Amino acid sequence: MIEITLPDGSVKEFPENSTPIDVARSISEGLARNVISASFNGTTVETGTPLSTDGNLVLYTWSSDEGKKAFWHSTAHVLAQALEELYPGIKLTIGPAIDNGFYYDVDPGDHTISEKDFPAIEKKMLGIARGKHDYNMRAVSKAEALDYYKKQGNEYKVELIENLEDGTITFCDHDTFTDLCRGGHIPNTGIIKAVKLLNTAGAYWRGDEHKTQLTRIYGISFPKQKELNEYLQLLEEAKKRDHRKLGKELELFAFSQKVGQGLPLWLPKGAALRERLENFLKKAQKKAGYEQVVSPHIGQKELYVTSGHYAKYGADSFQPIHTPHEGEEFLLKPMNCPHHCEIYNARSWSYKELPKRYAEFGTVYRYEQSGELHGLTRVRGFTQDDAHIFCTPDQLDEEFRNVIDLVLYVFGSLGFENFTAQVSLRDPETPDKYIGSNENWEKAESAIINAAKEKGLNYVIETGEAAFYGPKLDFMVKDALGRSWQLGTIQVDYNLPERFDLTYKGSDNEMHRPVMIHRAPFGSMERFVAILLEHTAGNFPLWLMPDQAIILSISEKYEKYAEKVLNSLENYEIRALTDHRNETIGKKIREAEMKKIPYMLIVGENEEKEGTVSVRKHGEGDLGSISTKAFAKIVEEEISRTLKQF
Amino acid sequence: MIEITLPDGSVKEFPENSTPIDVARSISEGLARNVISASFNGTTVETGTPLSTDGNLVLYTWSSDEGKKAFWHSTAHVLAQALEELYPGIKLTIGPAIDNGFYYDVDPGDHTISEKDFPAIEKKMLGIARGKHDYNMRAVSKAEALDYYKKQGNEYKVELIENLEDGTITFCDHDTFTDLCRGGHIPNTGIIKAVKLLNTAGAYWRGDEHKTQLTRIYGISFPKQKELNEYLQLLEEAKKRDHRKLGKELELFAFSQKVGQGLPLWLPKGAALRERLENFLKKAQKKAGYEQVVSPHIGQKELYVTSGHYAKYGADSFQPIHTPHEGEEFLLKPMNCPHHCEIYNARSWSYKELPKRYAEFGTVYRYEQSGELHGLTRVRGFTQDDAHIFCTPDQLDEEFRNVIDLVLYVFGSLGFENFTAQVSLRDPETPDKYIGSNENWEKAESAIINAAKEKGLNYVIETGEAAFYGPKLDFMVKDALGRSWQLGTIQVDYNLPERFDLTYKGSDNEMHRPVMIHRAPFGSMERFVAILLEHTAGNFPLWLMPDQAIILSISEKYEKYAEKVLNSLENYEIRALTDHRNETIGKKIREAEMKKIPYMLIVGENEEKEGTVSVRKHGEGDLGSISTKAFAKIVEEEISRTLKQF
Repeated sequence: MIEITLPDGSVKEFPENSTPIDVARSISEGLARNVISASFNGTTVETGTPLSTDGNLVLYTWSSDEGKKAFWHSTAHVLAQALEELYPGIKLTIGPAIDNGFYYDVDPGDHTISEKDFPAIEKKMLGIARGKHDYNMRAVSKAEALDYYKKQGNEYKVELIENLEDGTITFCDHDTFTDLCRGGHIPNTGIIKAVKLLNTAGAYWRGDEHKTQLTRIYGISFPKQKELNEYLQLLEEAKKRDHRKLGKELELFAFSQKVGQGLPLWLPKGAALRERLENFLKKAQKKAGYEQVVSPHIGQKELYVTSGHYAKYGADSFQPIHTPHEGEEFLLKPMNCPHHCEIYNARSWSYKELPKRYAEFGTVYRYEQSGELHGLTRVRGFTQDDAHIFCTPDQLDEEFRNVIDLVLYVFGSLGFENFTAQVSLRDPETPDKYIGSNENWEKAESAIINAAKEKGLNYVIETGEAAFYGPKLDFMVKDALGRSWQLGTIQVDYNLPERFDLTYKGSDNEMHRPVMIHRAPFGSMERFVAILLEHTAGNFPLWLMPDQAIILSISEKYEKYAEKVLNSLENYEIRALTDHRNETIGKKIREAEMKKIPYMLIVGENEEKEGTVSVRKHGEGDLGSISTKAFAKIVEEEISRTLKQF
Repeated sequence: MIEITLPDGSVKEFPENSTPIDVARSISEGLARNVISASFNGTTVETGTPLSTDGNLVLYTWSSDEGKKAFWHSTAHVLAQALEELYPGIKLTIGPAIDNGFYYDVDPGDHTISEKDFPAIEKKMLGIARGKHDYNMRAVSKAEALDYYKKQGNEYKVELIENLEDGTITFCDHDTFTDLCRGGHIPNTGIIKAVKLLNTAGAYWRGDEHKTQLTRIYGISFPKQKELNEYLQLLEEAKKRDHRKLGKELELFAFSQKVGQGLPLWLPKGAALRERLENFLKKAQKKAGYEQVVSPHIGQKELYVTSGHYAKYGADSFQPIHTPHEGEEFLLKPMNCPHHCEIYNARSWSYKELPKRYAEFGTVYRYEQSGELHGLTRVRGFTQDDAHIFCTPDQLDEEFRNVIDLVLYVFGSLGFENFTAQVSLRDPETPDKYIGSNENWEKAESAIINAAKEKGLNYVIETGEAAFYGPKLDFMVKDALGRSWQLGTIQVDYNLPERFDLTYKGSDNEMHRPVMIHRAPFGSMERFVAILLEHTAGNFPLWLMPDQAIILSISEKYEKYAEKVLNSLENYEIRALTDHRNETIGKKIREAEMKKIPYMLIVGENEEKEGTVSVRKHGEGDLGSISTKAFAKIVEEEISRTLKQF
C-alpha cells in the first residue's frame, strides 16, 4: 500500500500502482469524471499514471489553470495529427499550451497553411476528438527516439531529442499519432467538444531570426460548445474595449512618430481625466498624512550607482546623458526612490517626526524594445503614483495597514470589486539571498500577513517571491471581462535606507535606520487608465467622466436656452457641453451614445417653457423631464455612490 | 555755428566748439550743474568735449543709467590713483563701471590688498575727490602711449595698447594721475561724495586661467552720503532676502550633490506652495479657455531637428540619450513647443475650432555650466508654466489682449505692482533675417502694440529685438528692493507652424497655417518662486503661505483645546499647525515670527473658557481675543484683498 496526501492535508492508503483517477474515484464518481490532470509531488503526471510511492497528489478539473493547461496541451496533439493528415510531409516542431489556448509551430514544407484553411482543419480535429482516443505515455530510449524522427526526416525533433538526457525521454500516443512529449494530458480526446483556430503567425525556429521561419497556428478548445461561444464573444468584446482604440475615439491620448514610440501625448480630455485621478488620490493621501514632493527627471549616474540600480539595470536602460563640458553623466530616472531618499537626507530626523510619507506623481523612463511596446500598458515613459514611507520598524505594522486601506479605497472608488492579493515572502532556506536582519524580516513579514488578514483580503502567500530587499504585497484586479491585471503594490525595503545611509535619532538618543515602504495604488497612471478603459469600455465612473452631460437642442431656436442650461450646470460643477448643430435630434442622440456621454439633456419648446431638461441616460434611455437642479441632484447622488470619502 | 538736436527733437544753434555743458547751460543753470555725462551722435563724449559738427546730443544726470556709469567709471580712476599712491609699484590693468559700481583689476606685485585695507583706501579716495580735479582727455600716439607704460614696466597696459589702432588712443588725466582710457567721465572729482569698497576677488588677466591672477577690487560711489547709506541698507536687506537662505530656512527646497547641481528637490512645503501657484494659474487658464495637456520629458532627436533646436543649441545642450538596442537617439526636452505642435497635429482642425490653447506645467532641461548655476534662478531643470495658442492670423489681436489680461491678473494677485513691458519688433532694415510674410509681421506687430496700448501698459519699443520667428512682449517686474527681474513673456511664432506643417481648414475650404503664441506668465516655477521669495522676504500673500497660522498653547493643559481650534481651522480650510512644546509663550512667539507664520493664535485659560483665540499678526502684534469663526473671517478678507477672481 502507498500513502497519498491530498491538498486538504488528509492522508489515505491505496494499493500500489493506483492512478490519480483511482484516487478521484475513491472520493466521488463525479470527481473521477471531471479530473483531467494531476500533479504528484509537484510534478505533472497523467491521470492514468500508476503511483508507486507515498506522496502528495493534486487533482485538477477544467476549472483550474492546471486543468486548462492539460486540456489545451492535449488539443495541440490533435491539431498536430490533423495537420499531418491534411498536409503530408509537414514537419512538427513544438506545440505548448499558453495562457489562452495553445499553438503548434510547423515547418509546412511546400504547403501553405492560412486562416482560410481553418474550417477544414477544425473539422478534422473534431473528427479525431470524437474518436475518444486515450492519451498514452511511454518511455523511449534516446536512440529509439532519434531513429523515429530521423526516419521521418524531422530535423527539429531530432535537435530537441539530442538535447535531452537518455532515460528521460517519453512519447505520447493517441489514435494513430505519436509525439515527443513530457506529459500532462487529459485522459481522452473525447472530452474536447469545441475547437477554434484563431490565427497564424510567423515564428523562427527557437526564436532565432537566423533560423527557418515556421508557421505558428494558434487555437483554443473547450469541453462545451457554449464555452467556446462565450469565449469568442469575450474576444469580440475585448477588441471593442481595446484601450488603444477607445483612447483614440475618446481623444484621450495619442502617439507621435516624431516624439517617439512608447511616449504617450495626453490630449486635453485625457490629461483632464488623469488629473482628476491624481487629485482624487492626492486628496486621500493628504488625509492619510502624505506630503507631496517634486524631484527632477534625471539624476547623476552616481545616484544610481549608490542605489544599486545602475549595476543591475544600467546596461539595458536608456544610456547616460553626457554634458557638453565638465564631463558629468546623468541618467533618466527609472524610479523615484533614490530622489526621495535624498529628500529625506536633506535634514536630520528624530523618531518623534516619523513616519515621513513623501508622495510624488513621478514620471520615470525605462527602455523597452520597440516590439514590446503596447498602447499605454507597455510604454517607455510613465508616471507612477509613487510614495515612500520612512518609518521606524515598530511603525511598520500600522503603516502597512493604512496603505492597504488606501489601496482598497482607490479600487472601490473606481469600480474594481474583484481582486486578489499576493503576499511575497523570502525563502527561509536561502537567507543569504536577502538583505536586512532576520528580526526585521520577521517583523515585516508578519506585518504584511497580519494586515492582509485583518483587512479581510483574499490573499495567497508565495514563499521565495520576495524581492531581495524586502517582502511585498501585490494586488491583482479582475476586469469586466474576467482578465487579471496586476495593479497596486506595497513593498518593504531594507536596502535603500542602508545604501543611502538614512538615519533617525531614536528615543535612546542613538542613530537608527528607518524602514522604507514603496507603494503605488494605481501602479502607473498610463497603465491604470488603460486598464480602466478596458474595464469600463470608456464608461468611466461618473465622477471621472471627461464629459458628464451633453445638452442637445432640438433646433437652433433653443440654443439660447441650452446655453443657459449649460451655465447652470457649470455652477453645479457638472462638466457639460452642447450640440447645436443643425442635425436631427435622433442623430445627435446616436452620436452622444457613441461618445459614451453619460447623460443627454434634450431641450426644445416644452423644456424651455417649463424651465426643464429631458434627461436620457447612456445605454438606459429616457428618465423624463426635470429641472436642472433635480438633474444636478441625480448626478451628485450617482457620484456619491462610487466616490466615497476616504 | 553748429546745429544741435536734443532728444525731444528740438534743434538749437550753437557756436562751433560749444561743449555739452554749454548746451546744458543754455537750457538751465540747474541742468548744467547736474549734467555728468553726454553722448553725441550715439558716442559717449566728455561733458567738456568741444562739439564741431551738427549732431544729436543727449545729456545725462545721475538719475540715468548712463550718468551712473560715467560716475562709477570716473571713481575707478580715483581708486586707481589711491592704490598707486598707497602701494607703489603695483600695476594697473582695467577698471570698468558695472551694473552696481565699478572694479579695478590690479597686479599687486609684492603687496597684498585685502578687505581690512579698505578704510585706508577709501579715505585716500575721498581725499583725492575733495581736491576737485577735472578729468581731461587727451589724444596720444601709439608710440607715445607704449613708451609711457613701458617706462612704468606695466606689461598689461602695453598689451592693451598694442591691440589698439594708432590715432584712436586717448589718456585721461586728473590730478597727478593718468590712465589709458576711452572716455566717458564726469566733469570733476568733486562730485564724488561717498565711496565704499565692497570686496576683493581673484581674476585672471583677460579671464584666462593660464595667465596671471590679479586682485579685483569692487566698489561703489555716490554723489551723496545718504545714497550710499541707503544702498548699503539695501545690500543688507537683499542678503536677508536671498532666496537660497530663505528657501532653506522655510524648508521649501534643497539641492543634493548626489542628484546633481542645479536640479532642485522641492520639499513638502515648497512643493505645496508651488502646487498652489499652479492651481491658481490653472483655474484662471481654465476660465480663459486653455486646455491642459501632458507630454514626455524626452523626444527623439528627429523632433528637435524638425523644430530647428538641435541645429541651434544641440552642441551646447545635454547630449543625446542612446538606447541599448535599436540605435535610437533621444534628447531631454529643452522646451515644450515641439511636443505641443505634435499634439496639435494628432488630428485635423477647422477654423471653427480655433484657437486651441494647450497649457502644460512642462519640466524642461537645459545645460548650464556649473559656475553659472545660482539657487532657483539659474538651474538645469525647471518647470515652465507654458502654453501654446494655435490661432488664425485674424485671431491674433484678441488672443494677445487676453494673454496680457492673464499676465496682469497673475502679477496683481502676487503683489507685483511695479512692472514695465518691452515690445520687441523686427528691424525693418534687415527683413531677410526674419521668417514669415511681411503682412503677417505687420499684423502681429500692430496686434502687440495695440494690445499694450489698450491695456495701459508702461512699455518701451525695441526695434530689432524680435526673435527671427516673431515679435514679442516681455514683462519686467521691480521687486520690493527696486531690483528688476524679467518675468512673463508672450511671443508670436511663424516658424514652428511652418516646420511642423501645422494646418487648419479655413472658411474658404483651403488649408492654412495657424499662428502660434508662446506664453508663460510666471516664466518658470523655480525662478518665479525665487523672485517671490526675495520680493516678499518669505512673507508671501496669505493665500500662498505654507502655514497660515500657528496655535501656541500657553501650557500643556490647553493642548486639547488647541487641537480643537486646529480642527475648526481645518474646517475653514485654513492651513495651521500647533506648538505644544514645553516652552515659554514668549519663545514660541519669537520662533513663529522667525518662521514668518502670518498669524499666531495663543490659547490659555481665558481663551478656553470663552472659546476664543488671542490673535497676533506677524510683524504687527496683538489683534485681541476673538472666536475662530471671526478669525476665519479675517483670513478670508485678507485673502480676497489680493486674490481676485479672474
